[in-house]
Amino acid sequence: MANFDIHQIVQSLHEARVGWRVAQRRNNDSSGREFPSRDALDGIVTTLKGVLFPMRLGPPDLRQESENFHVAHALDAALHALLGQVRLELKYSAGLSGRPTPNLEQDAISITRAFGASLPQIRSQLDTDVLAAYQGDPAARSVDEVLLCYPGALAMIHYRLAHRLYQLGLPLLARIIAELAHAATGIDIHPGAQIGTGFFIDHGTGVVIGETAVIGNNVRIYQAVTLGAKRFPTDADGKLEKGRARHPIVEDDVVIYAGATILGRIRLGRGAVIGGNVWLTHDVPAGAHISQAASREDSLSLANAGA
Amino acid sequence: MANFDIHQIVQSLHEARVGWRVAQRRNNDSSGREFPSRDALDGIVTTLKGVLFPMRLGPPDLRQESENFHVAHALDAALHALLGQVRLELKYSAGLSGRPTPNLEQDAISITRAFGASLPQIRSQLDTDVLAAYQGDPAARSVDEVLLCYPGALAMIHYRLAHRLYQLGLPLLARIIAELAHAATGIDIHPGAQIGTGFFIDHGTGVVIGETAVIGNNVRIYQAVTLGAKRFPTDADGKLEKGRARHPIVEDDVVIYAGATILGRIRLGRGAVIGGNVWLTHDVPAGAHISQAASREDSLSLANAGA
Amino acid sequence: MANFDIHQIVQSLHEARVGWRVAQRRNNDSSGREFPSRDALDGIVTTLKGVLFPMRLGPPDLRQESENFHVAHALDAALHALLGQVRLELKYSAGLSGRPTPNLEQDAISITRAFGASLPQIRSQLDTDVLAAYQGDPAARSVDEVLLCYPGALAMIHYRLAHRLYQLGLPLLARIIAELAHAATGIDIHPGAQIGTGFFIDHGTGVVIGETAVIGNNVRIYQAVTLGAKRFPTDADGKLEKGRARHPIVEDDVVIYAGATILGRIRLGRGAVIGGNVWLTHDVPAGAHISQAASREDSLSLANAGA
Amino acid sequence: MANFDIHQIVQSLHEARVGWRVAQRRNNDSSGREFPSRDALDGIVTTLKGVLFPMRLGPPDLRQESENFHVAHALDAALHALLGQVRLELKYSAGLSGRPTPNLEQDAISITRAFGASLPQIRSQLDTDVLAAYQGDPAARSVDEVLLCYPGALAMIHYRLAHRLYQLGLPLLARIIAELAHAATGIDIHPGAQIGTGFFIDHGTGVVIGETAVIGNNVRIYQAVTLGAKRFPTDADGKLEKGRARHPIVEDDVVIYAGATILGRIRLGRGAVIGGNVWLTHDVPAGAHISQAASREDSLSLANAGA
Amino acid sequence: MANFDIHQIVQSLHEARVGWRVAQRRNNDSSGREFPSRDALDGIVTTLKGVLFPMRLGPPDLRQESENFHVAHALDAALHALLGQVRLELKYSAGLSGRPTPNLEQDAISITRAFGASLPQIRSQLDTDVLAAYQGDPAARSVDEVLLCYPGALAMIHYRLAHRLYQLGLPLLARIIAELAHAATGIDIHPGAQIGTGFFIDHGTGVVIGETAVIGNNVRIYQAVTLGAKRFPTDADGKLEKGRARHPIVEDDVVIYAGATILGRIRLGRGAVIGGNVWLTHDVPAGAHISQAASREDSLSLANAGA
Amino acid sequence: MANFDIHQIVQSLHEARVGWRVAQRRNNDSSGREFPSRDALDGIVTTLKGVLFPMRLGPPDLRQESENFHVAHALDAALHALLGQVRLELKYSAGLSGRPTPNLEQDAISITRAFGASLPQIRSQLDTDVLAAYQGDPAARSVDEVLLCYPGALAMIHYRLAHRLYQLGLPLLARIIAELAHAATGIDIHPGAQIGTGFFIDHGTGVVIGETAVIGNNVRIYQAVTLGAKRFPTDADGKLEKGRARHPIVEDDVVIYAGATILGRIRLGRGAVIGGNVWLTHDVPAGAHISQAASREDSLSLANAGA
Repeated sequence: MANFDIHQIVQSLHEARVGWRVAQRRNNDSSGREFPSRDALDGIVTTLKGVLFPMRLGPPDLRQESENFHVAHALDAALHALLGQVRLELKYSAGLSGRPTPNLEQDAISITRAFGASLPQIRSQLDTDVLAAYQGDPAARSVDEVLLCYPGALAMIHYRLAHRLYQLGLPLLARIIAELAHAATGIDIHPGAQIGTGFFIDHGTGVVIGETAVIGNNVRIYQAVTLGAKRFPTDADGKLEKGRARHPIVEDDVVIYAGATILGRIRLGRGAVIGGNVWLTHDVPAGAHISQAASREDSLSLANAGA
Repeated sequence: MANFDIHQIVQSLHEARVGWRVAQRRNNDSSGREFPSRDALDGIVTTLKGVLFPMRLGPPDLRQESENFHVAHALDAALHALLGQVRLELKYSAGLSGRPTPNLEQDAISITRAFGASLPQIRSQLDTDVLAAYQGDPAARSVDEVLLCYPGALAMIHYRLAHRLYQLGLPLLARIIAELAHAATGIDIHPGAQIGTGFFIDHGTGVVIGETAVIGNNVRIYQAVTLGAKRFPTDADGKLEKGRARHPIVEDDVVIYAGATILGRIRLGRGAVIGGNVWLTHDVPAGAHISQAASREDSLSLANAGA
Repeated sequence: MANFDIHQIVQSLHEARVGWRVAQRRNNDSSGREFPSRDALDGIVTTLKGVLFPMRLGPPDLRQESENFHVAHALDAALHALLGQVRLELKYSAGLSGRPTPNLEQDAISITRAFGASLPQIRSQLDTDVLAAYQGDPAARSVDEVLLCYPGALAMIHYRLAHRLYQLGLPLLARIIAELAHAATGIDIHPGAQIGTGFFIDHGTGVVIGETAVIGNNVRIYQAVTLGAKRFPTDADGKLEKGRARHPIVEDDVVIYAGATILGRIRLGRGAVIGGNVWLTHDVPAGAHISQAASREDSLSLANAGA
Repeated sequence: MANFDIHQIVQSLHEARVGWRVAQRRNNDSSGREFPSRDALDGIVTTLKGVLFPMRLGPPDLRQESENFHVAHALDAALHALLGQVRLELKYSAGLSGRPTPNLEQDAISITRAFGASLPQIRSQLDTDVLAAYQGDPAARSVDEVLLCYPGALAMIHYRLAHRLYQLGLPLLARIIAELAHAATGIDIHPGAQIGTGFFIDHGTGVVIGETAVIGNNVRIYQAVTLGAKRFPTDADGKLEKGRARHPIVEDDVVIYAGATILGRIRLGRGAVIGGNVWLTHDVPAGAHISQAASREDSLSLANAGA
Repeated sequence: MANFDIHQIVQSLHEARVGWRVAQRRNNDSSGREFPSRDALDGIVTTLKGVLFPMRLGPPDLRQESENFHVAHALDAALHALLGQVRLELKYSAGLSGRPTPNLEQDAISITRAFGASLPQIRSQLDTDVLAAYQGDPAARSVDEVLLCYPGALAMIHYRLAHRLYQLGLPLLARIIAELAHAATGIDIHPGAQIGTGFFIDHGTGVVIGETAVIGNNVRIYQAVTLGAKRFPTDADGKLEKGRARHPIVEDDVVIYAGATILGRIRLGRGAVIGGNVWLTHDVPAGAHISQAASREDSLSLANAGA
Repeated sequence: MANFDIHQIVQSLHEARVGWRVAQRRNNDSSGREFPSRDALDGIVTTLKGVLFPMRLGPPDLRQESENFHVAHALDAALHALLGQVRLELKYSAGLSGRPTPNLEQDAISITRAFGASLPQIRSQLDTDVLAAYQGDPAARSVDEVLLCYPGALAMIHYRLAHRLYQLGLPLLARIIAELAHAATGIDIHPGAQIGTGFFIDHGTGVVIGETAVIGNNVRIYQAVTLGAKRFPTDADGKLEKGRARHPIVEDDVVIYAGATILGRIRLGRGAVIGGNVWLTHDVPAGAHISQAASREDSLSLANAGA
């Protein structure tokens, strides 16, 4: 006698899937897999890291004289692989919206081309992030150490690639790339956030940066900092309003110490310093130093820290 | 001359192991490896994900017309592999307790069979979790995005599988599966916790849910929320009492914002809203809104946040 | 027509690299890769885990009678692989400092030999950590469960190996090994920290322990605890002073509950208990119990929680 | 200075390819790879072996109770993968001939479906081959040994699959599958050959069976036997005539010993025995015994070269 | 609509298997896989090659100072893996014969232990084979080249290991190991053959050496040489007689050139030289030179077909 | 008790190795592995195949627009890997001869550079071989089929690469590459042989072409053809003379059918046709047709054994 009643379980699982698809109005006749692939994007990002930093994040036996050969080949492969994922998101997105996509193939190529053309600028931005970490952490012995060891550096590579895709109209690809970094570092930066140059996240575990956050240049934050939404406004039907600016604006040269929670569309003025564990829902003037004590003297109303 | 005195180190390590085994009263004569394997369970859970959601988490080239073939084959393989791990835990557990296990093989089959039979229900529960995330997060564009991108979805798949094994008397297998999700997401849900349908964890890093926590339906929590124990009671001999209910009860429709710490066997009434960073060790009535300000007006005694 | 202008992007990326190297005064003529490899160290640590705990973390089919054969072979392989990485750090470090290294090869061998000779002691220390977890957590059913499931155990294995390398003058190798554990567990222990025996970290996500922290024996901490620096003193030129003791001293038998933030070169006296979420920047006498309420009655000045 | 002048070699290789494509009238603009893949077919045949003989050639941990689950899943995967290769050959073939292929997709499905439907019959034919080897070789201890050890069995599995594809109008796929067996066994059976049931090839290295050979039931041959063409007739233009029957007909129950060379459209009558190293270009009557001596008009007695 | 009628094919294949099992009197109820595994033996032999020749066939980064560590570990692993395969053959063999096997486990250990104890002698024998090739082939530049490049060396390693297993009563394991070499080299040596020291096979493709062949010391043969049976005697029932000596005896110092076919229980006297393509079914006296001409009663002079 | 006496076997194997090294005058103190690696060369040749024929033998997803990027990268990687192997052979060779090698590194680079520069010519030669197969075999449907399916094509790619290395003074690397093809095809071409353009080997199993053979343009041979040495002359000391021309010269447009054995430094004149199984040790005039009959002075007509 067989140990397990496989047929019965398979049948019940089948019914569960059919039920779900009916409830979600999914087409049972569709074949194939229309969603971008997390594994494919993982491979693409890994290749792009080697394109951006060939001697540090490329293949271990690369020689400097061969950099351009490697970069050309890897870039070519990565862009074509990305093109496939771009097509999938455009098609998926069209399916959700029900709009026709007469130019899907040409759109996919244009978007991927634009992304590729951005890579040199992304490299330059990342150089400023690496330098900021090196200059901002007494423990950092070299820029190489930052690039290879610091989870914040990994998170920023993913963020800057993901943000570019987000700008180009590919929120799903962007989100998957961001979540790959989240899983590896515990740093959760929404790809919609806008972040200037020279951004440094130390330690990083538990950092959350929301979709509409705006961060200037040379900002430094520590572990468990949240730049979140204060509340989620709902429309007349009780549905959450989407796309509204709901996260903080952080101006140049601000420092935010570990565990601080900054909520809502407030503004931290240039050069402000926010102390550890501070709970903050109001604007802060330029140059101000906010400690936990100070912030606790406010009479706070309900503040929801979900980002 | 050899670079390293391998023989000497091997001998010293051998003595260290012997010392440990003597101190722990381990049998030096036993051969083989009696403990379940983390790698094996990782593979089993990966296969089960494809059994539960074949088109999203199964092999990338699966077609809908072939779902049932894949599910049957993968399920058969996963259950037989799990059976091997169940045997190991039962045998290991019997070894710890010193009780004979005359029916170990039959017990292992019965347990694995019961686990297999639960899978359709687990799938249906997970569908409610995915739907809750889609409806609760303005950023979620589709249920597919939730399933593929959200760390909370990954954590819940592991939790619901692990919880079933925990119920069936396999706490070690359950714990290993839960820790696999903890490592991947930073979300630490003890498999003994009881969680209703439609549970949504956003961002998730740093969430800790303790062994005796009870969570109702349609509950939503954010990153760094702790549902922990207030203190660990000891018995007359000073040893920790085990198995006592020591974690919160969270009723239906509660929302807990980021960083809130809820400790002890307290009850959060239906529909309560707990603000971010709130520190809470008392019951909360249904429908109440607790903000940080309010909770700080209490005079708190020692509260230990370990879960 | 080709889809992407690969040549143009390659050229721009090349210019970005050249610009960076000029700015960083990097030698464009150097060939090869002078930095230690994260992947190589991952493999070495994995092998060393099997050397330290052959029956639990070694190959799954190992038999007890074969332990010493496995340990000898794996140790030999791991030490030779480590030797290669030690060479790379010494060479890299010499390159940064500009000092000649006439004895680099002999130094590398001596250091690696000393590291190898430390392994039995490291095993014994880890045994105390495992035992502490087993005795300190009511949910732990066996020491095996601790070793295989607890992220704190993984973090301590990495820490104790990394700390030994740090002591031997290899801060980069040490850092990389520590970051491997950070990525897997969310526990960030700087390899420079000094930690006694019987150290137990429960849950662990978000724990940060700084470079100059000193921790006694039988200390227990929970998730999201920070042992950080209060501020970063700068020298006359405005540059951060390096190497100064700036993190807490934690004496024997202290317990620190989840989310507590302990900052600066303060001392927590023997047997002190620090409550959850406590914010602490002053010394604590032996045996004291500090709760959040108590600590909030202080009037705190600016406290920077970066570690 | 770079070691190698990569650019120059790349350019020269590029010119060589362009030259070839011009000479072969290949379209330089075509993108993609229109030819079936040897690696893909290797994978497909490996899967089909497990479909045909699940307990012997399927996955090593298969249990008999799970055979049908494995077979269904593997068959489904193999047929869909084969469908992709069938499309490629049809498209490639249409490109060579210049004929339009309005029904290519439907043709590919029909052909693959017909191939799938043949598998049970192929399994039954292979059973007769295995049995013939077991009965014909004193060294064979079991039918299992034949299936797992005998190169002749491997060659026949490939042949029977390839021959079916050849019949269905896919000579390239058939040829690739045949060459995979040729590489593994040294047995070169053209997929166009017609071979009855109960065919046994012992040792096998160097066996060559030509495209138009016809072999009856219960025939046995040894290593280095050639069933070849005597000459290649040319047409009026001096080009080789194609498709003409030019290889031997071997009737039921014939035995051909090692190294015999049988050439041309001759007929070996039922039950004939051809001695080792015999050179034969004439018909042989039923029941005749042909030794090397006879074929050379010497007076040697029958010498059978089977080992 | 699904492309393929998987259910129907699965059902027909199922019936084909059932039919075969009934015809072969196979027990349909048996679960598991009772036959030794070709893949497992491939891995075991690969490991044993590194045990026998650690610096040439062991892991590429092995250092001479570490040889014994590698050998001990690899040997331990290989013998335990082999023990598993020995059990399978003993169990399978008992199943075929229907005899009970009360001491199967102890027998398996004894046999494997005896095999392990033979390895040093096998290494010494292989050293003579390597030396013979080096001395007998003008093209061989070093003994290392022979060991690494010559298919004859590979075939002899497999043969000597397989022959020892054959002697120990494991004909199936022996056969599988021999066929692995046959597939890789085209050299087919039955593991039952007895071969002295210093045996050299040049080129080797197509060589066949039968089960009861006896070969002395310092014998040299070339490609496509057959040492075969002249005929297969049958008993009174018409069944092939098994185990009878039916292959040639080749005394010391004999040379046999390419393509020669030597059949039956004849004796080639010490130092005889057999020319290329010779067909031989009679004894040859010591020191004789047999050319094709002689064997054909022609007047050709000696022609040696070695390349 | 342990199953196996590993220590004893290890010790005996150690003694066997020491004995061998003493007998072979090997230095027991040397560390490392000075011999080229078969696996490394296998990888290098695989990469070079993709360099030579990127769209047919390169990565399966290559697009024509990306050919040059792939070729540049792969060529760069392959030449640097080859450089490492070249160093090993030069060093090994110097060790054998005892000559100092002051310029080893520069020699290695020069040789590898020269090899790289030959690749375009090798590609062009291989194009003629592929075309010859297509034109010479009625079964060949396209040049692509030849390149992907025909073992003769594989053998010629290896031969032409190996021959170039042989010319450049690297007989070991050449031999290893040739043996890789021998194992895969049963075709054994010594890399020292000289072969013109448009060479076609059909079927191929058992073909042996000796080191000093010289083959013109547009020659065609079939399976089991030997171009061998008639005898091995010895010098006054009885040692084999090396390097003497001892294999046939085959002029343009010759055809040699299956199983023919051509021995010694004889000359086959332009356009000669050698029948199947012919045994030939004399010169053949241009245009002659030699059948087995003729060579045996029988009256058989021409019989061509190609299949």
